[in-house]
Amino acid sequence: MGLGNVPRDAFFNPDGSGADSLRDVVDKVLESLMVVVRERAGQSPLPRSVESHYEAFPQEGHGYDDVFARLSGVLQDSLYPAHPGYIGHMDSIPTLMSVIGDFVAAFLNNNLLSQEMSPALSMMETDVLRQFGQKFGLGENSGGVMTSGGTLANLQALALARNRAFSVRDEGLARLGKRPVLFASEVAHTSLQKAAMLLGLGSSAVVPVRADANSRMRPDDLEEKIRNAKACGEAPFAVVATAGTTVTGNIDPLREIGALAKQYGLWFHVDAAYGGGLIFSPTQRFRLQGIEQADSVTFNPQKWMYIAKTCAMVLFKDTDLLLSDFRVAAPYMSDSDFVNLGEISVQGTRHADILKLWLSLCHIGLVGYQQLVDHSYATTAFFVDQIRARSYLVLAGEPETNLCCFRGEPSFLPQDAWDEWNVELQRHLSQRGQTFLSCPGYRGGRWLRAVLLNPFTTTEVIDGVFRAMDEFYQASAAARG
Amino acid sequence: MGLGNVPRDAFFNPDGSGADSLRDVVDKVLESLMVVVRERAGQSPLPRSVESHYEAFPQEGHGYDDVFARLSGVLQDSLYPAHPGYIGHMDSIPTLMSVIGDFVAAFLNNNLLSQEMSPALSMMETDVLRQFGQKFGLGENSGGVMTSGGTLANLQALALARNRAFSVRDEGLARLGKRPVLFASEVAHTSLQKAAMLLGLGSSAVVPVRADANSRMRPDDLEEKIRNAKACGEAPFAVVATAGTTVTGNIDPLREIGALAKQYGLWFHVDAAYGGGLIFSPTQRFRLQGIEQADSVTFNPQKWMYIAKTCAMVLFKDTDLLLSDFRVAAPYMSDSDFVNLGEISVQGTRHADILKLWLSLCHIGLVGYQQLVDHSYATTAFFVDQIRARSYLVLAGEPETNLCCFRGEPSFLPQDAWDEWNVELQRHLSQRGQTFLSCPGYRGGRWLRAVLLNPFTTTEVIDGVFRAMDEFYQASAAARG
Repeated sequence: MGLGNVPRDAFFNPDGSGADSLRDVVDKVLESLMVVVRERAGQSPLPRSVESHYEAFPQEGHGYDDVFARLSGVLQDSLYPAHPGYIGHMDSIPTLMSVIGDFVAAFLNNNLLSQEMSPALSMMETDVLRQFGQKFGLGENSGGVMTSGGTLANLQALALARNRAFSVRDEGLARLGKRPVLFASEVAHTSLQKAAMLLGLGSSAVVPVRADANSRMRPDDLEEKIRNAKACGEAPFAVVATAGTTVTGNIDPLREIGALAKQYGLWFHVDAAYGGGLIFSPTQRFRLQGIEQADSVTFNPQKWMYIAKTCAMVLFKDTDLLLSDFRVAAPYMSDSDFVNLGEISVQGTRHADILKLWLSLCHIGLVGYQQLVDHSYATTAFFVDQIRARSYLVLAGEPETNLCCFRGEPSFLPQDAWDEWNVELQRHLSQRGQTFLSCPGYRGGRWLRAVLLNPFTTTEVIDGVFRAMDEFYQASAAARG
Repeated sequence: MGLGNVPRDAFFNPDGSGADSLRDVVDKVLESLMVVVRERAGQSPLPRSVESHYEAFPQEGHGYDDVFARLSGVLQDSLYPAHPGYIGHMDSIPTLMSVIGDFVAAFLNNNLLSQEMSPALSMMETDVLRQFGQKFGLGENSGGVMTSGGTLANLQALALARNRAFSVRDEGLARLGKRPVLFASEVAHTSLQKAAMLLGLGSSAVVPVRADANSRMRPDDLEEKIRNAKACGEAPFAVVATAGTTVTGNIDPLREIGALAKQYGLWFHVDAAYGGGLIFSPTQRFRLQGIEQADSVTFNPQKWMYIAKTCAMVLFKDTDLLLSDFRVAAPYMSDSDFVNLGEISVQGTRHADILKLWLSLCHIGLVGYQQLVDHSYATTAFFVDQIRARSYLVLAGEPETNLCCFRGEPSFLPQDAWDEWNVELQRHLSQRGQTFLSCPGYRGGRWLRAVLLNPFTTTEVIDGVFRAMDEFYQASAAARG
């Protein structure tokens, strides 16, 4: 059987002889990327249109030029989150070293399932995550695994907490009789409901705890909810605090929540997917006080560390628990003293997300990350000042990180028209301007949300955003007469 | 707050002005890759040593040259799975288009969580997976989502099956009373035990069904196990058939198993993570007959389609069930008619694994993939002939795909020394030769396992592998005297 219809360049030659042709291909791709980037820079971060059909199975393969022409179409139709006006989600411009890291990771194609399939990279992951554990104050026996996104990190933390509390790893929950429940702020991320659903607890096992005016969990309500659950015969096993809520970026009072978790014998998980980035700032780190008490922590370098997606981790104070209460062995791997990471992770085969993280840390350093975090606080302060200077805009609360949630409440409109007005404003900014804000549902209404991550989002860019908002406001007021 | 300590090239400039410096960086990386590739080509696919410590937090960032020097060390210490002698696992050389695809995906950094964060790529994923569903014969309403590895694909399929069977999405399993169980071959992949553990069923909820001499599930034993479980008051809800077992690459009798699943009202899942690649071969596709009856299918293009890791999918015959029995909504996203893929996936934030798959299909085409699959059958036939020609080697069974499981049973050694002899042979080939075979535990002993994926693994390479084995055998016999 021949390979006559497989393009000669379907693979790089593993003897390295095809290096020049690989360079040509990469050059062509870079060219396409840059053409699109230059075009998109002066436009909206959103694409104008999206191709309606992507053919999966052409009979014969297409040549490079044809493939790259199709790829250019995909680039045109994609979001451009590196755009300085894209400030709507916890996505930002990726570090250059993450782009390089993912390129190398794909070329190497090592599998982080086992040490024998990724000798250096498995070691790197274990090593680097041990250092992250210590950075969060979790102590000498801490460490963890990378997960493909924070949802899986929360899932793994809660799986281990559940297994510990009820010894159900082998026998399951079905004959438990009492219902396990956990507690999280009413504004915590929905990945907790998803985790509870997957774990067989049911999505309603996440008991919502009331948040204060700044979206921070109220410890008094937490204690009441724990007592109520016990009184109803339910089986509380975990509390999840959030450091960096999805919509407003606020941080739950970690110390008080940790103390209550300890008092009631509950697993203490901190979802610091977003706010974990504060460990890099000596001036802002105090906001995470109490995280060192956590049994487990979720942290996503794919957010405030600017690593390309996906890049997330789950850390445990006591990594021995991964062996005693979580591990599922893969007997087709060689024996080794080193624990295969795929055996202590919710995933099996795993991508080398650690490489881009390590390379970015090597390149930017602690001081560089400190400046990136602190600079985005300065940008947020400037953004907030602009809101406060306008009578038609109101803040949802006091920003604690670099998220800013606000909305227009134009006095010339009745209150029940405000939601629609904000949705229209958001759409106007995306389609006519060069700004993308998100438009989340929050407290029963629609809000505008800025996530001020991108270091290219200068004060000039922000001035432009507010000028566009003012124009929309004035035009809308004028139309109203 | 300034950014003076953030390297000027920490990010590419989103206006495209830094294109030249980006090209320089990529050129340097390519150069490092090629230096290593050329060195490694004549050596073992395994590295000689592994660096013992990776520093995560340098105070100041390092310049490019320093970072790339460190990266070269990582490359030296990594596995080199593109090596024609690396035939030990279901990992192979990645397509060139997957390397390009992951480079572009990192640069674009779109989030496959929602359509607003990845307009083209979300559409591409939905579109391409619908076509895969039809290719597997699952019908007009089929489709699915990409998952980061097959373990998550199996997890999602079984989560949906469980939710359907017991209506436990919201309320959980704890008060169910009866224990849900599922059935899979005794040689099925351990990701099923992991899924059962995570889902709150307990890892022992996977009832092992006996396999025949060729590692294929025995339908008679399946029926007996289903009846026994019912008689014991357990609650059977799913059957998992494997198309391409981990150790020997065999395929369960899908039609018979599907018929039994239907007869007993059980969800029928096919784990075709490996064997799904057979859809590309008109001459081998018959081995998958019955897969079209499946309620869900796992398929990993990261294996036989040569896509860089991770690249896996879970397909459902009826995608409406993802909405009715699985979805957890993300209310911070814009309203849209398009279903956000992160809401119907076990993950939330997701990488654009679809891009490298689509680009590779565009480049290689159906006929190219057909030839790759058929060619690896021819390579396997050659490999099997070499085994049969040697009296000291025995096959574990009849290969059905491109896996070959065998071992040495040297007559000059007592039977209880064979395991150790095979472990030594494997180590010898890895360390002294240029061959990596894996050495799985199977049927209570240690075996050698070849996965003949790599198109660069020519008959000459295989001749060399067997020459090295013969030498080891002869030396070992001589030492024995």
